[in-house]
Amino acid sequence: MSVHRFEPRVYHTSIGTHAPVLTIASGSTVITTTVDARGMDATGKQVTERGNPQTGPFFVEGAEPGDMLSVTFDRLRPNRKFGWSASAIAPNVLEPETVKQAPDEAPARWEIDQEAGTATLVEPRTALGRLTLPLRPMVGCFGVAPPRGQAISTATSSTHGGNMDYRGFVEGVTVHFPVFVPGALFHVGDGHALQGDGEIVGTGIEISFDIQFTVRLVKGKALQWPRAESADEIMTVGNARPLDQCVQHATTEMVRWLQEDYGLDARGAHLLLGQCVRYELGNMYDPAYTMVCKVSKSLLAGLEAGR
Amino acid sequence: MSVHRFEPRVYHTSIGTHAPVLTIASGSTVITTTVDARGMDATGKQVTERGNPQTGPFFVEGAEPGDMLSVTFDRLRPNRKFGWSASAIAPNVLEPETVKQAPDEAPARWEIDQEAGTATLVEPRTALGRLTLPLRPMVGCFGVAPPRGQAISTATSSTHGGNMDYRGFVEGVTVHFPVFVPGALFHVGDGHALQGDGEIVGTGIEISFDIQFTVRLVKGKALQWPRAESADEIMTVGNARPLDQCVQHATTEMVRWLQEDYGLDARGAHLLLGQCVRYELGNMYDPAYTMVCKVSKSLLAGLEAGR
Amino acid sequence: MSVHRFEPRVYHTSIGTHAPVLTIASGSTVITTTVDARGMDATGKQVTERGNPQTGPFFVEGAEPGDMLSVTFDRLRPNRKFGWSASAIAPNVLEPETVKQAPDEAPARWEIDQEAGTATLVEPRTALGRLTLPLRPMVGCFGVAPPRGQAISTATSSTHGGNMDYRGFVEGVTVHFPVFVPGALFHVGDGHALQGDGEIVGTGIEISFDIQFTVRLVKGKALQWPRAESADEIMTVGNARPLDQCVQHATTEMVRWLQEDYGLDARGAHLLLGQCVRYELGNMYDPAYTMVCKVSKSLLAGLEAGR
Amino acid sequence: MSVHRFEPRVYHTSIGTHAPVLTIASGSTVITTTVDARGMDATGKQVTERGNPQTGPFFVEGAEPGDMLSVTFDRLRPNRKFGWSASAIAPNVLEPETVKQAPDEAPARWEIDQEAGTATLVEPRTALGRLTLPLRPMVGCFGVAPPRGQAISTATSSTHGGNMDYRGFVEGVTVHFPVFVPGALFHVGDGHALQGDGEIVGTGIEISFDIQFTVRLVKGKALQWPRAESADEIMTVGNARPLDQCVQHATTEMVRWLQEDYGLDARGAHLLLGQCVRYELGNMYDPAYTMVCKVSKSLLAGLEAGR
Repeated sequence: MSVHRFEPRVYHTSIGTHAPVLTIASGSTVITTTVDARGMDATGKQVTERGNPQTGPFFVEGAEPGDMLSVTFDRLRPNRKFGWSASAIAPNVLEPETVKQAPDEAPARWEIDQEAGTATLVEPRTALGRLTLPLRPMVGCFGVAPPRGQAISTATSSTHGGNMDYRGFVEGVTVHFPVFVPGALFHVGDGHALQGDGEIVGTGIEISFDIQFTVRLVKGKALQWPRAESADEIMTVGNARPLDQCVQHATTEMVRWLQEDYGLDARGAHLLLGQCVRYELGNMYDPAYTMVCKVSKSLLAGLEAGR
Repeated sequence: MSVHRFEPRVYHTSIGTHAPVLTIASGSTVITTTVDARGMDATGKQVTERGNPQTGPFFVEGAEPGDMLSVTFDRLRPNRKFGWSASAIAPNVLEPETVKQAPDEAPARWEIDQEAGTATLVEPRTALGRLTLPLRPMVGCFGVAPPRGQAISTATSSTHGGNMDYRGFVEGVTVHFPVFVPGALFHVGDGHALQGDGEIVGTGIEISFDIQFTVRLVKGKALQWPRAESADEIMTVGNARPLDQCVQHATTEMVRWLQEDYGLDARGAHLLLGQCVRYELGNMYDPAYTMVCKVSKSLLAGLEAGR
Repeated sequence: MSVHRFEPRVYHTSIGTHAPVLTIASGSTVITTTVDARGMDATGKQVTERGNPQTGPFFVEGAEPGDMLSVTFDRLRPNRKFGWSASAIAPNVLEPETVKQAPDEAPARWEIDQEAGTATLVEPRTALGRLTLPLRPMVGCFGVAPPRGQAISTATSSTHGGNMDYRGFVEGVTVHFPVFVPGALFHVGDGHALQGDGEIVGTGIEISFDIQFTVRLVKGKALQWPRAESADEIMTVGNARPLDQCVQHATTEMVRWLQEDYGLDARGAHLLLGQCVRYELGNMYDPAYTMVCKVSKSLLAGLEAGR
Repeated sequence: MSVHRFEPRVYHTSIGTHAPVLTIASGSTVITTTVDARGMDATGKQVTERGNPQTGPFFVEGAEPGDMLSVTFDRLRPNRKFGWSASAIAPNVLEPETVKQAPDEAPARWEIDQEAGTATLVEPRTALGRLTLPLRPMVGCFGVAPPRGQAISTATSSTHGGNMDYRGFVEGVTVHFPVFVPGALFHVGDGHALQGDGEIVGTGIEISFDIQFTVRLVKGKALQWPRAESADEIMTVGNARPLDQCVQHATTEMVRWLQEDYGLDARGAHLLLGQCVRYELGNMYDPAYTMVCKVSKSLLAGLEAGR
């Protein structure tokens, strides 16, 4: 159970079978940093090209296709005093016939106060004034190398994770990935100080991060789509277009999970989801959108008791 | 500000310019009942054909096209001791290639305990056992007569409301509709003891209701899509397919609302939504799906203060 | 087999259970006229409100729910010397991020020369000059009354037909409809001198028509979606959003048709369509889009011989 | 203007920046072979893993990002006596509620007669008998290396081409690609003896090919999406999901092309497409679907004359 401090020197704007930057054992913790979506580091200096540059990949010893890699985000902390965002809702999120009336894109700047735990709008000036919002740091883009020799742009997402831009990927959450290549090759980047549902302006409040995560390998457990757990909920993630298809992937993966690990037959899983499921919108901006399917752990505990 | 007690004798499975059952003034309260989605009343007797039969329509004096009708759900209470639901997730919510493995539809029966505030699964028997869930009564289908001489099936929804099947339409919520025809012609039905997001099995826990609502007419206020308010949030509703289009309608309507009533210019509205918007999935089962766009009233209050 | 000459005095902008204008027997032919999409007649005078006003409905004696109504377009002829169209591609047909660069809508005017069989662009003036195109007259919106007491706007389409805007609905084609209400209640309107695939500017070249059609009732033959036949092809029609769903409806209806009437089992129908099917895009503008699934009659004849 | 005979020894199931197998100059012709979708060569032997294995990549001298690579298919010929196909329509092409009634997938075998120019169904046995269809050889999957260090699975398609499965990519057609990486890196594979629209069973009649193509480099001409030309038509290709988005990409690219190369302003391009555009469905099976937008060259010639 070792702890690795890793300082990145190279970044990737695709997630694929790139040369590993570090080899770690299951159970290991990594303490590192990520640059923001434009490649700017903690000092505000641009150190790599823009486009959600990723720290990594990290090679997990013993990981093979057909295994599951679990990554717990132990610590996710913005590490500088400003973030930036876009300020215009993306045209694909508006009624097409109203797009011409929408404002053009212009950058917005936010002050980040770590102690107060807030982000404050500095510019542009609008009737919002110095809108102040609570921080809720999350990572937008992370995942494992996809199968088939692919390297997939960090603009998008799929079964391997990627640019899911879901505001629920916060400190304390564990994300489970299918392993497609030896070593799994975990990549991580694109921190947001906070973000709305859907990432509808195309950004959260983008910022560099100090990050600590722990990996755990589960042999011989095959997933179809990413899964995740918070203290209160289990989650499955569907990445595709349109949103309907995201819901199909996430729901089907949840049915599988309930059957595999929670002792339900198909009927029971369907019945439970029918009256109790919750969905959250990750992003509706990237080439693949993201919907998350959630079930409260309290229901699953109750289920055990009810049997 | 009168209170009307109304006992329905006729029901409609389309929302349209049907003969009014009662004429009421703005500010009036109506106490009435609704049958369940199959036309069964409080005694469990089928009194009309199935398909979300509606109580009403109620003619609101003075309502003209271009006005807004606000309906507050003062009281929504299941009025019998059992409800029913479907038990298989609809094929359109599953990955197409897994549909053949899904269970066939079979009805489920739930005991409703008003005092305990719970619904308990009675059949079918699964590993869920007697799953017990808290009641959260909501109405699935309600709205006003659409324009252009249309009568629209209560299976679906559009700008006039209809079968939105959103679990947030609970007691205490006010829903605002565009008025398309003289008198607005409000219809209501399809009570659910509770429901999951997406209504993915095609039903909530379906049950007859005692219902009390109050109408208020606002002259000369034109909406494009339904809006709603709870104690904590303002909401806009998009009804269409696919879900992407629902999000477009709901988001665009929210931008309009923020500009009309909350003193924001377009830039401010876009910036606020970008980092603060929330979405919830109404239904992904009916011919038109439903997505709800939400903003916390605390943000809007803060906005006033921040200026 | 009587022939009825009918001069319309009333028009409808929804398709529903309106008062019949004429009762006809199966086998009857009707000679009548339609106004254009804006309600302008052969003289160019606006005689009714805009929005694809329909001539009819025609009550077909003996038609009952569960029957099939076949309508053959014997003659479809523009009856005046000018038509009009829109000139800007609808925003929903363009990449969302390019919508702001698109031209604003401005009306275009076309001269119609019946003898030459051409439409010539008169205005606006562009590098197209006096673009001259061959006429291919077709009807955009027609259908039968939908079930459940509905009246559906002539802006859209569904299982009952409606505003399908498919350029293949030309003279000589027979369209088959499911009957949902007694008398079927056939409506027709919205003639186009010609139209591109997808009706992507939102109009064809819109014009009033002289029209002749013949109805035939087939008892006890239930369709799910409209079907059609030309001299060379059989066709099924799916009306929905998004286009994917249109394809699903049209393809599934074609599988049913091949099994019901052409002696194929499911495997044979799937195999045939897999390598031989053709699709055409009706409209991608209206609230419901339209895709048409086609099979060559020569393949079906060959099929008989091949057995 | 040299001619290269190339015998492949390695194949790729992703399109990316793989090691070039041959470096060629603009104007060069390559004569080579492709294996079928399962990796079987002209002798029927499986020589590489399944999944649309690609011959290449071919490095075109002088090609740089921002250029256009034109590839003409001089000769596309099946080179063995049998092909295979799937026999069940994919679940995503059927109404979801009918999927359970569809036949399960079972392989079909076809005899290919090069001299007669036909494919004849050998098995399975259905009422289709020995269905005989005319050959129309086309390539399903081909393209250039994508940007950003990506390698994209040959199961799917995007701006770089890929698995478009469009039956119009036949002998004589020229396809134009945006160049994203030095050398362009052209890949080609996945020949079909013939295919229906939509590739709705997930395959054409899959077979190995003798193939001859000629490349031409156009410096400094940037495309957003693939374009193509046959003797009679110009075409643009949109690859995405859902089909609506494919239409958006293809249509927008066609507007750009008409403005860049055919002397039209935006208004003229929109007007022309509005009444004259044609669409064809490439595939509705792969992760990204394909729609093709077409304009007749006769219209464009007429356009020159009309000015």
